[in-house]
Amino acid sequence: MYRTNTCGELRLSDAGREVTLAGWVQRTRKMGGMTFVDIRDRYGITQIVFESDADAALCDNANHLGREWVIQVTGTVAERTSKNPNLPTGEIEIIAKELKVLNRSEVPPFTIEDETDGGDDLRMKYRYLDLRRSCVRGNLELRHRMAFEIRRYLDSKGFLEVETPVLIKSTPEGARDFVVPSRMNPGQFYALPQSPQTFKQLLMVSGFDRYFQIVKCFRDEDLRADRQPEFTQIDCEMSFVTQEDVLQMFEGLVKHIFKYVKDIDFTDPFPRMTWADAMRLYGSDKPDTRFGMEFVELKDLTGGKGFSVLDDAEYVGAIVAPGCAGYTRKQLDQLTDFVKRPQIGAKGMMWVKIEEDGSIKSSVSKFYTEEELRTWTDRAAAGKGDLMLILAGQTAKTRKQLCELRLEMGSRLGLRDPQKFSCLWVIDFPLFEWDDETQRYYAMHHPFTSPNPDDLHLLDSDTGAVRATAYDMVVNGNELGGGSIRIHEAELQDHMFRLLGLSEEDAQYKFGFLMNAFKYGAPPHGGLAFGFDRFVSILAGLDSIRDVIAFPKNNSGRDMMIDAPASIDDSQLDELQIKLNLKE
Amino acid sequence: MYRTNTCGELRLSDAGREVTLAGWVQRTRKMGGMTFVDIRDRYGITQIVFESDADAALCDNANHLGREWVIQVTGTVAERTSKNPNLPTGEIEIIAKELKVLNRSEVPPFTIEDETDGGDDLRMKYRYLDLRRSCVRGNLELRHRMAFEIRRYLDSKGFLEVETPVLIKSTPEGARDFVVPSRMNPGQFYALPQSPQTFKQLLMVSGFDRYFQIVKCFRDEDLRADRQPEFTQIDCEMSFVTQEDVLQMFEGLVKHIFKYVKDIDFTDPFPRMTWADAMRLYGSDKPDTRFGMEFVELKDLTGGKGFSVLDDAEYVGAIVAPGCAGYTRKQLDQLTDFVKRPQIGAKGMMWVKIEEDGSIKSSVSKFYTEEELRTWTDRAAAGKGDLMLILAGQTAKTRKQLCELRLEMGSRLGLRDPQKFSCLWVIDFPLFEWDDETQRYYAMHHPFTSPNPDDLHLLDSDTGAVRATAYDMVVNGNELGGGSIRIHEAELQDHMFRLLGLSEEDAQYKFGFLMNAFKYGAPPHGGLAFGFDRFVSILAGLDSIRDVIAFPKNNSGRDMMIDAPASIDDSQLDELQIKLNLKE
Repeated sequence: MYRTNTCGELRLSDAGREVTLAGWVQRTRKMGGMTFVDIRDRYGITQIVFESDADAALCDNANHLGREWVIQVTGTVAERTSKNPNLPTGEIEIIAKELKVLNRSEVPPFTIEDETDGGDDLRMKYRYLDLRRSCVRGNLELRHRMAFEIRRYLDSKGFLEVETPVLIKSTPEGARDFVVPSRMNPGQFYALPQSPQTFKQLLMVSGFDRYFQIVKCFRDEDLRADRQPEFTQIDCEMSFVTQEDVLQMFEGLVKHIFKYVKDIDFTDPFPRMTWADAMRLYGSDKPDTRFGMEFVELKDLTGGKGFSVLDDAEYVGAIVAPGCAGYTRKQLDQLTDFVKRPQIGAKGMMWVKIEEDGSIKSSVSKFYTEEELRTWTDRAAAGKGDLMLILAGQTAKTRKQLCELRLEMGSRLGLRDPQKFSCLWVIDFPLFEWDDETQRYYAMHHPFTSPNPDDLHLLDSDTGAVRATAYDMVVNGNELGGGSIRIHEAELQDHMFRLLGLSEEDAQYKFGFLMNAFKYGAPPHGGLAFGFDRFVSILAGLDSIRDVIAFPKNNSGRDMMIDAPASIDDSQLDELQIKLNLKE
Repeated sequence: MYRTNTCGELRLSDAGREVTLAGWVQRTRKMGGMTFVDIRDRYGITQIVFESDADAALCDNANHLGREWVIQVTGTVAERTSKNPNLPTGEIEIIAKELKVLNRSEVPPFTIEDETDGGDDLRMKYRYLDLRRSCVRGNLELRHRMAFEIRRYLDSKGFLEVETPVLIKSTPEGARDFVVPSRMNPGQFYALPQSPQTFKQLLMVSGFDRYFQIVKCFRDEDLRADRQPEFTQIDCEMSFVTQEDVLQMFEGLVKHIFKYVKDIDFTDPFPRMTWADAMRLYGSDKPDTRFGMEFVELKDLTGGKGFSVLDDAEYVGAIVAPGCAGYTRKQLDQLTDFVKRPQIGAKGMMWVKIEEDGSIKSSVSKFYTEEELRTWTDRAAAGKGDLMLILAGQTAKTRKQLCELRLEMGSRLGLRDPQKFSCLWVIDFPLFEWDDETQRYYAMHHPFTSPNPDDLHLLDSDTGAVRATAYDMVVNGNELGGGSIRIHEAELQDHMFRLLGLSEEDAQYKFGFLMNAFKYGAPPHGGLAFGFDRFVSILAGLDSIRDVIAFPKNNSGRDMMIDAPASIDDSQLDELQIKLNLKE
């Protein structure tokens, strides 16, 4: 037996026991005639004491231990003279009797501490050492715990986890499919699923009633900051349900996770906001509702005073930054620079301050009287000491810019605490998106999304106004997941295809397989999918999903540790009956 | 709301309640002025009654329902006149008040019954309909339940489920790797993992201590009867453990599954058998121990009587088929034909009968006296009415043949009840296998398998006799899983590579990445992997893994339902910078 206890479990009540621990040398230090060795494993750190007086040879061995060596120590648990209240094992130490080196270690390329001296690239290359850091390992422990609780909740609600295939078929829409040549079927390829959407709908046709899966999905796309070519979804689908049933069920899931993983009880129902309101009040379909600072529209108050910027603007919107009237010129210029950055793209920013004495100052006081400006601040319910920030321009673009400004102000004002969680359903998404370039409608989610039953009469007459039975779960400004009720009636589906400009042949070619299955008694059904990596990162309070993935890939889709992807042998290519066709 | 209850839950105590059910039409029949409709969902079947007298129009609608239509029915629960004791809902029926057709169905291509009229190919093509059959769905419910209980057990033992990557690197040994061209890294390929072996060992280096994962693995090989190109493993690894620790832990897992899924309590420890004994007694490293019929070796008793078949044989082995002395000439000929089939390859079979009166008959009585034959039957402890079957030849081959004969006799005698479970650890596998062709040793498992500590002194002097610290879990003659303690010491690993004829460069090229990681403090570790598909199929009492997989592939690796793999667009090939290179 290698150990009687882990390095995290001994307490004062164990004093006097002889124990054996095994783990990694975190650090060693000599003090007087004693050598202290901190031994570490997944469960904690325990201090070992080697006394030179008691056993000089043993102590000498301890002095020769290196960082990250793997050792086994037998000794007696004793109360510490100087206790460490920050360590669960901080009241005890082990007086060593035996020491065995199980394995040596070369000096690691960075320190194995929460605050490491290793840069990103080095940590990724030596990810197996990075994973020894308790903060990184903690993220993966959280991930395990969350996956476990998700399964516990869904199992208790009668959901069956069904594994859908990874080797599937490339779809005509599958521009970003990873493909896999088949040795047994030369010239033919499998594709890796971007989601199990088709299969989960088939399982509903099969009468599985409640399906879920925590499942890897794949997308071969240019990786933006926080995307991975392989990612994990919590994929769910239910039969014989309305939107309300789905929202209830998965609100329950999210609450279960917060309760059993984070010990946070959400007693009230999650707020629900229409997509239209989200865009109007926050300029985003995933508003961060940890703080208010909703948009205020001023267009009707700003016109006709000869200030062309506001006169010509389709939209004038403002937010109120509470207590920021004291912002200096420099601070205001910083904010102006922020909104003028190319990725945000505003032309400029206006402001109105209500000083502590109630007087008003503004960047546009040349054009507006104090009385006129007060109509603006009144509408926004801005008070003494508040700062009103105003953007103007084309509606959709300006809302987006104001959204960024709002988030920036939220961050500056410390209103976006990563340990505070604000959950929200966004509902009533539009069913269609109009594309100016191709002059036609596209499905905002996918072409199987059911229209809101109340809007069915608008399908032909006011297509763009039709709302979808689609919903997103938003937490702290992140889209945690989303889904929809699906169309299960053939006639309605045909109507949708027509509105999307798909001929019968097109529809058959693109979606025929699923449509054929639907001919054999498809039940009403709907569901949703959560991004599991994102879900974990939010609960971990992290901005990036990378550190909640054990072995992530970098922005070029490379695994720096194993150095993949890589070239393969000609013989392998030959067997697959393909060859390279590299462009210059 | 689509339903108040499922089709499986109403009982006599619900009589008088108004309920709404939704599901599929299993069958309709008219009797007198009434129409009976069986409505089905995942949870069961409920009988609906439409009374023509009460509502002729409603009853007429019911008469026009087709098989597998999706309907919603509201009505009152009533006690049945003629109860059906075979159905949990068999005491009640619903007196219908309302009927709504939620969806129609074309006539399905086969009947949705346990005993269906659909052939294999048809069922696979319409797998979404096949999955409606309760027997098939039951397998997947079992699979869900098992996965859930596996996680529950391992979580309770401190194992962390960690997702390892699916897009990894092709290894030099990876002749059967599926590869995935990378669009972002032209000319380079990922590979899909045949197992997460490297990653789980890295997680041990990372100090994760106890890891598991229920994970898809991939192998692009010619598919024998019961293999799938994608399959699921329960992959596990532990640090600071001996073989005994691993066996205890995973014996506990298997017992937990039997207990919580099949309600079978295994109180005794699972038997353990050395590989050598398994080969000697059963001719197999995965003996079916649901029945005895162990091999008896007769070589020392059979020589020198002028019967060259036995005189020249390296090995003479027998099994005793109890109570089969009455076998006719024809039955014996059938058995002889069985062992002579090319896939078994015996030259012939000999037999000795002990008749009920104690007299002995034998196919070799020309060469042996009754007294001589009686020394054979005595050794085999054969009694009156028993039949002894004898094969002879080269040891390894003959044992294999005798193994097949034993299994055949077990089946004929009804000793292989799929609902009886016999679990066994096979231990002490040889570390090396000698290959005559290349005249060198190969690792029987993989080159990281640790030698049995007691045999370390034999590594150079008697290499072939060295036992591995490797073990298999065998259930009913199936290898359910296996694993080993891994080598964690660099010196021993180098020694192994040398014995396997790998130069330092070879070893570095093939395994360098893992070996480098091992330089940074690898703990002693070991683990195992279970084949999850097989595990489920055994508990389901099925021979094949295909029906415990929701969407399996056929023997050509094809998904008949979605028709994958398939050709892809030239534009896709072009973007991946590869082209086809089809052989004639």
